[in-house]
Amino acid sequence: MVKTEKDIQKEIVRLKVNFKTLEEFKKFKEYGIQELSMLEDLEANIIENDSESPFYGIYFGDKLVARMSVYQVSGKYNRYFEPPVDYLEIWKLEVLPEYRGKGYGTALVNFAKDFGMPIKTNPRANSRSFWEKMGFKTVNYDMERDLGENPLIWFQNDISEAK
Amino acid sequence: MVKTEKDIQKEIVRLKVNFKTLEEFKKFKEYGIQELSMLEDLEANIIENDSESPFYGIYFGDKLVARMSVYQVSGKYNRYFEPPVDYLEIWKLEVLPEYRGKGYGTALVNFAKDFGMPIKTNPRANSRSFWEKMGFKTVNYDMERDLGENPLIWFQNDISEAK
Repeated sequence: MVKTEKDIQKEIVRLKVNFKTLEEFKKFKEYGIQELSMLEDLEANIIENDSESPFYGIYFGDKLVARMSVYQVSGKYNRYFEPPVDYLEIWKLEVLPEYRGKGYGTALVNFAKDFGMPIKTNPRANSRSFWEKMGFKTVNYDMERDLGENPLIWFQNDISEAK
Repeated sequence: MVKTEKDIQKEIVRLKVNFKTLEEFKKFKEYGIQELSMLEDLEANIIENDSESPFYGIYFGDKLVARMSVYQVSGKYNRYFEPPVDYLEIWKLEVLPEYRGKGYGTALVNFAKDFGMPIKTNPRANSRSFWEKMGFKTVNYDMERDLGENPLIWFQNDISEAK
Protein backbone atom coordinates (compact mmCIF):
# COMPACT_ATOMS: atom_id res chain seq x y z
CA MET A 1 0.00 0.00 0.00
CA VAL A 2 1.13 3.50 -0.75
CA LYS A 3 1.73 5.68 2.28
CA THR A 4 -0.37 8.83 2.33
CA GLU A 5 0.70 12.05 4.00
CA LYS A 6 -1.68 11.15 6.83
CA ASP A 7 0.32 8.02 7.65
CA ILE A 8 3.59 9.85 7.98
CA GLN A 9 4.82 9.96 11.54
CA LYS A 10 4.53 13.54 12.72
CA GLU A 11 7.59 14.37 14.73
CA ILE A 12 7.15 17.24 17.13
CA VAL A 13 10.25 19.29 17.84
CA ARG A 14 10.88 22.11 20.24
CA LEU A 15 11.80 25.09 18.07
CA LYS A 16 15.06 26.94 18.66
CA VAL A 17 15.23 30.72 18.55
CA ASN A 18 17.35 31.53 15.51
CA PHE A 19 17.01 33.53 12.32
CA LYS A 20 15.86 30.51 10.32
CA THR A 21 12.96 29.79 12.71
CA LEU A 22 11.94 33.43 12.78
CA GLU A 23 11.95 33.51 8.98
CA GLU A 24 9.65 30.43 8.96
CA PHE A 25 7.33 32.15 11.46
CA LYS A 26 6.59 34.89 8.91
CA LYS A 27 4.48 32.39 6.94
CA PHE A 28 2.07 32.08 9.86
CA LYS A 29 -0.88 34.41 10.25
CA GLU A 30 -0.49 34.99 13.96
CA TYR A 31 2.85 36.78 13.75
CA GLY A 32 2.95 39.43 16.45
CA ILE A 33 5.00 41.14 19.12
CA GLN A 34 6.13 37.82 20.58
CA GLU A 35 8.00 37.05 17.35
CA LEU A 36 9.21 40.65 16.93
CA SER A 37 10.53 40.65 20.47
CA MET A 38 12.40 37.35 19.85
CA LEU A 39 13.94 38.84 16.70
CA GLU A 40 15.06 42.01 18.48
CA ASP A 41 16.53 40.05 21.39
CA LEU A 42 18.44 37.87 18.95
CA GLU A 43 19.76 40.83 16.96
CA ALA A 44 20.83 42.62 20.15
CA ASN A 45 22.45 39.41 21.50
CA ILE A 46 20.14 39.53 24.51
CA ILE A 47 19.30 35.91 23.83
CA GLU A 48 21.66 33.34 22.43
CA ASN A 49 21.24 31.85 19.00
CA ASP A 50 19.53 28.44 19.21
CA SER A 51 18.17 29.03 22.71
CA GLU A 52 14.91 27.28 23.55
CA SER A 53 11.63 28.87 22.58
CA PRO A 54 8.10 28.23 23.91
CA PHE A 55 7.20 26.98 20.41
CA TYR A 56 6.80 23.40 19.25
CA GLY A 57 6.44 22.58 15.60
CA ILE A 58 6.31 19.94 12.89
CA TYR A 59 8.47 20.00 9.77
CA PHE A 60 7.53 18.52 6.42
CA GLY A 61 10.90 18.05 4.81
CA ASP A 62 12.79 21.17 5.85
CA LYS A 63 9.67 23.35 5.95
CA LEU A 64 7.91 24.26 9.19
CA VAL A 65 4.24 23.54 8.48
CA ALA A 66 2.63 23.63 11.94
CA ARG A 67 3.40 25.27 15.25
CA MET A 68 2.05 26.17 18.67
CA SER A 69 3.27 28.11 21.68
CA VAL A 70 2.98 26.43 25.07
CA TYR A 71 3.52 27.87 28.54
CA GLN A 72 3.12 26.25 31.96
CA VAL A 73 1.08 28.66 34.10
CA SER A 74 1.74 28.41 37.81
CA GLY A 75 -1.11 27.16 39.97
CA LYS A 76 -1.07 30.42 41.90
CA TYR A 77 -2.44 32.21 38.81
CA ASN A 78 -4.95 29.43 38.10
CA ARG A 79 -8.48 30.83 37.78
CA TYR A 80 -9.78 28.09 35.48
CA PHE A 81 -9.37 24.75 37.23
CA GLU A 82 -10.15 23.12 40.55
CA PRO A 83 -8.01 22.19 42.40
CA PRO A 84 -5.76 25.12 41.33
CA VAL A 85 -2.97 23.04 39.80
CA ASP A 86 -0.41 24.18 37.25
CA TYR A 87 -1.87 24.15 33.75
CA LEU A 88 -0.76 24.66 30.17
CA GLU A 89 -1.71 27.65 28.10
CA ILE A 90 -1.60 27.02 24.35
CA TRP A 91 -1.67 29.83 21.81
CA LYS A 92 -0.83 30.31 18.14
CA LEU A 93 -1.69 26.74 17.23
CA GLU A 94 -1.61 27.06 13.47
CA VAL A 95 -1.14 24.82 10.46
CA LEU A 96 -0.17 26.35 7.11
CA PRO A 97 -3.20 26.34 4.74
CA GLU A 98 -2.03 23.67 2.31
CA TYR A 99 -1.25 21.27 5.17
CA ARG A 100 -4.59 21.44 6.96
CA GLY A 101 -6.85 18.44 7.48
CA LYS A 102 -3.89 16.05 7.63
CA GLY A 103 -3.61 15.63 11.39
CA TYR A 104 -0.88 18.19 12.17
CA GLY A 105 -3.02 20.20 14.58
CA THR A 106 -4.25 17.04 16.27
CA ALA A 107 -0.68 15.80 16.70
CA LEU A 108 0.34 19.06 18.38
CA VAL A 109 -2.62 19.09 20.77
CA ASN A 110 -2.09 15.42 21.67
CA PHE A 111 1.55 16.24 22.38
CA ALA A 112 0.43 18.97 24.80
CA LYS A 113 -2.07 16.62 26.46
CA ASP A 114 0.78 14.20 27.20
CA PHE A 115 2.27 16.74 29.62
CA GLY A 116 -0.42 15.48 32.01
CA MET A 117 -1.79 18.89 32.92
CA PRO A 118 -5.11 20.59 32.19
CA ILE A 119 -4.99 22.95 29.22
CA LYS A 120 -6.48 26.35 28.47
CA THR A 121 -6.57 28.10 25.12
CA ASN A 122 -8.22 31.18 23.62
CA PRO A 123 -8.61 30.11 20.02
CA ARG A 124 -9.30 32.03 16.87
CA ALA A 125 -13.00 32.38 16.18
CA ASN A 126 -13.21 29.93 13.29
CA SER A 127 -11.39 27.02 14.97
CA ARG A 128 -13.95 26.14 17.64
CA SER A 129 -15.10 22.88 15.99
CA PHE A 130 -11.52 21.61 15.89
CA TRP A 131 -11.06 22.22 19.61
CA GLU A 132 -14.37 20.59 20.46
CA LYS A 133 -13.36 17.52 18.48
CA MET A 134 -10.22 17.47 20.65
CA GLY A 135 -12.36 17.33 23.79
CA PHE A 136 -12.11 20.99 24.83
CA LYS A 137 -15.12 22.70 26.35
CA THR A 138 -16.23 26.31 26.59
CA VAL A 139 -15.81 27.85 30.05
CA ASN A 140 -18.63 29.56 31.88
CA TYR A 141 -17.94 33.16 30.94
CA ASP A 142 -16.68 35.37 33.79
CA MET A 143 -16.20 38.94 32.59
CA GLU A 144 -13.69 40.00 35.20
CA ARG A 145 -11.50 37.02 34.33
CA ASP A 146 -12.18 36.49 30.64
CA LEU A 147 -12.71 40.06 29.33
CA GLY A 148 -12.65 39.68 25.52
CA GLU A 149 -11.49 36.07 25.51
CA ASN A 150 -13.43 32.96 24.48
CA PRO A 151 -11.52 30.39 26.53
CA LEU A 152 -11.70 26.67 25.97
CA ILE A 153 -10.41 24.20 28.54
CA TRP A 154 -9.51 20.52 28.67
CA PHE A 155 -9.12 18.45 31.79
CA GLN A 156 -9.00 14.88 33.01
CA ASN A 157 -9.89 12.83 36.05
CA ASP A 158 -9.89 14.77 39.31
CA ILE A 159 -9.65 18.22 37.75
CA SER A 160 -12.78 20.25 37.08
CA GLU A 161 -13.72 23.75 36.02
CA ALA A 162 -13.26 26.46 38.66
CA LYS A 163 -16.55 27.88 39.96
CA MET B 1 -23.57 73.57 3.35
CA VAL B 2 -24.84 70.02 3.37
CA LYS B 3 -23.99 68.08 6.47
CA THR B 4 -21.98 64.94 5.77
CA GLU B 5 -22.14 61.82 7.90
CA LYS B 6 -18.80 62.86 9.41
CA ASP B 7 -20.32 66.04 10.83
CA ILE B 8 -23.10 64.25 12.61
CA GLN B 9 -22.69 64.31 16.36
CA LYS B 10 -21.86 60.82 17.47
CA GLU B 11 -23.75 60.10 20.63
CA ILE B 12 -22.32 57.33 22.74
CA VAL B 13 -24.78 55.35 24.79
CA ARG B 14 -24.32 52.63 27.35
CA LEU B 15 -26.04 49.57 25.91
CA LYS B 16 -28.72 47.79 27.91
CA VAL B 17 -28.89 44.01 28.04
CA ASN B 18 -32.09 43.09 26.23
CA PHE B 19 -33.11 40.94 23.29
CA LYS B 20 -32.94 43.87 20.87
CA THR B 21 -29.32 44.67 21.77
CA LEU B 22 -28.33 41.02 21.57
CA GLU B 23 -29.94 40.76 18.14
CA GLU B 24 -27.90 43.82 17.01
CA PHE B 25 -24.73 42.19 18.36
CA LYS B 26 -25.12 39.35 15.86
CA LYS B 27 -24.08 41.72 13.08
CA PHE B 28 -20.65 42.13 14.67
CA LYS B 29 -17.78 39.79 13.88
CA GLU B 30 -16.57 39.39 17.42
CA TYR B 31 -19.64 37.62 18.72
CA GLY B 32 -18.56 35.10 21.33
CA ILE B 33 -19.25 33.53 24.70
CA GLN B 34 -19.71 36.93 26.34
CA GLU B 35 -22.78 37.58 24.18
CA LEU B 36 -24.01 33.98 24.48
CA SER B 37 -23.71 34.15 28.23
CA MET B 38 -25.71 37.42 28.32
CA LEU B 39 -28.41 35.82 26.19
CA GLU B 40 -28.63 32.74 28.42
CA ASP B 41 -28.76 34.83 31.58
CA LEU B 42 -31.55 36.93 30.08
CA GLU B 43 -33.56 33.88 28.97
CA ALA B 44 -33.16 32.26 32.39
CA ASN B 45 -34.09 35.51 34.14
CA ILE B 46 -30.72 35.51 35.91
CA ILE B 47 -30.30 39.10 34.77
CA GLU B 48 -33.07 41.61 34.40
CA ASN B 49 -34.14 42.96 31.05
CA ASP B 50 -32.53 46.36 30.37
CA SER B 51 -29.81 45.91 32.97
CA GLU B 52 -26.51 47.67 32.29
CA SER B 53 -23.93 46.01 30.09
CA PRO B 54 -20.19 46.67 29.76
CA PHE B 55 -20.87 47.74 26.16
CA TYR B 56 -21.03 51.26 24.78
CA GLY B 57 -22.26 51.94 21.29
CA ILE B 58 -23.32 54.43 18.66
CA TYR B 59 -26.60 54.25 16.77
CA PHE B 60 -27.18 55.57 13.27
CA GLY B 61 -30.93 56.01 13.22
CA ASP B 62 -32.16 52.94 15.07
CA LYS B 63 -29.27 50.74 13.96
CA LEU B 64 -26.30 49.97 16.19
CA VAL B 65 -23.27 50.62 13.96
CA ALA B 66 -20.34 50.67 16.41
CA ARG B 67 -19.63 49.19 19.80
CA MET B 68 -16.94 48.43 22.36
CA SER B 69 -16.76 46.64 25.69
CA VAL B 70 -15.07 48.47 28.57
CA TYR B 71 -14.06 47.20 31.99
CA GLN B 72 -12.26 48.95 34.83
CA VAL B 73 -9.49 46.64 36.02
CA SER B 74 -8.51 47.05 39.65
CA GLY B 75 -5.03 48.39 40.36
CA LYS B 76 -4.21 45.22 42.25
CA TYR B 77 -4.27 43.28 38.94
CA ASN B 78 -2.33 45.99 37.12
CA ARG B 79 0.73 44.56 35.39
CA TYR B 80 0.92 47.16 32.64
CA PHE B 81 1.27 50.58 34.24
CA GLU B 82 3.35 52.35 36.86
CA PRO B 83 2.22 53.38 39.38
CA PRO B 84 -0.26 50.45 39.51
CA VAL B 85 -3.46 52.48 39.22
CA ASP B 86 -6.86 51.23 38.04
CA TYR B 87 -7.01 51.10 34.26
CA LEU B 88 -9.54 50.44 31.51
CA GLU B 89 -9.52 47.34 29.37
CA ILE B 90 -11.22 47.81 25.99
CA TRP B 91 -12.21 44.89 23.80
CA LYS B 92 -14.51 44.25 20.85
CA LEU B 93 -14.17 47.77 19.51
CA GLU B 94 -15.82 47.28 16.15
CA VAL B 95 -17.55 49.38 13.52
CA LEU B 96 -19.84 47.71 10.97
CA PRO B 97 -18.09 47.59 7.55
CA GLU B 98 -20.23 50.17 5.73
CA TYR B 99 -19.74 52.70 8.55
CA ARG B 100 -15.94 52.58 8.75
CA GLY B 101 -13.71 55.58 8.13
CA LYS B 102 -16.35 57.99 9.42
CA GLY B 103 -15.02 58.58 12.91
CA TYR B 104 -17.12 56.09 14.88
CA GLY B 105 -14.15 54.17 16.24
CA THR B 106 -12.35 57.40 17.11
CA ALA B 107 -15.42 58.68 18.97
CA LEU B 108 -15.60 55.50 21.06
CA VAL B 109 -11.89 55.56 21.98
CA ASN B 110 -12.03 59.27 22.85
CA PHE B 111 -15.01 58.52 25.07
CA ALA B 112 -12.95 55.89 26.90
CA LYS B 113 -10.01 58.29 27.23
CA ASP B 114 -12.30 60.76 29.01
CA PHE B 115 -12.60 58.35 31.94
CA GLY B 116 -9.16 59.70 32.90
CA MET B 117 -7.49 56.32 33.29
CA PRO B 118 -4.79 54.55 31.31
CA ILE B 119 -6.13 52.06 28.79
CA LYS B 120 -5.06 48.62 27.62
CA THR B 121 -6.39 46.72 24.64
CA ASN B 122 -5.48 43.56 22.72
CA PRO B 123 -6.69 44.46 19.26
CA ARG B 124 -7.40 42.39 16.19
CA ALA B 125 -4.33 41.97 14.00
CA ASN B 126 -5.40 44.30 11.19
CA SER B 127 -6.35 47.29 13.36
CA ARG B 128 -2.91 48.28 14.64
CA SER B 129 -2.60 51.43 12.52
CA PHE B 130 -5.89 52.73 13.89
CA TRP B 131 -4.72 52.30 17.49
CA GLU B 132 -1.38 53.92 16.77
CA LYS B 133 -3.17 56.92 15.27
CA MET B 134 -5.08 57.10 18.56
CA GLY B 135 -1.81 57.36 20.50
CA PHE B 136 -1.56 53.76 21.70
CA LYS B 137 1.83 52.08 21.88
CA THR B 138 2.97 48.47 21.79
CA VAL B 139 4.08 47.11 25.16
CA ASN B 140 7.42 45.45 25.71
CA TYR B 141 6.44 41.81 25.30
CA ASP B 142 6.52 39.76 28.51
CA MET B 143 5.62 36.13 27.79
CA GLU B 144 4.46 35.21 31.28
CA ARG B 145 2.08 38.17 31.29
CA ASP B 146 1.13 38.54 27.63
CA LEU B 147 1.09 34.92 26.38
CA GLY B 148 -0.58 35.12 22.96
CA GLU B 149 -1.69 38.75 23.26
CA ASN B 150 -0.39 41.77 21.36
CA PRO B 151 -1.28 44.45 23.91
CA LEU B 152 -1.39 48.15 23.17
CA ILE B 153 -1.48 50.73 25.92
CA TRP B 154 -2.30 54.41 26.26
CA PHE B 155 -1.35 56.64 29.16
CA GLN B 156 -0.98 60.27 30.15
CA ASN B 157 1.10 62.43 32.44
CA ASP B 158 2.50 60.64 35.47
CA ILE B 159 1.64 57.12 34.31
CA SER B 160 4.23 55.03 32.47
CA GLU B 161 4.67 51.48 31.29
CA ALA B 162 5.39 48.89 33.98
CA LYS B 163 8.94 47.48 33.80
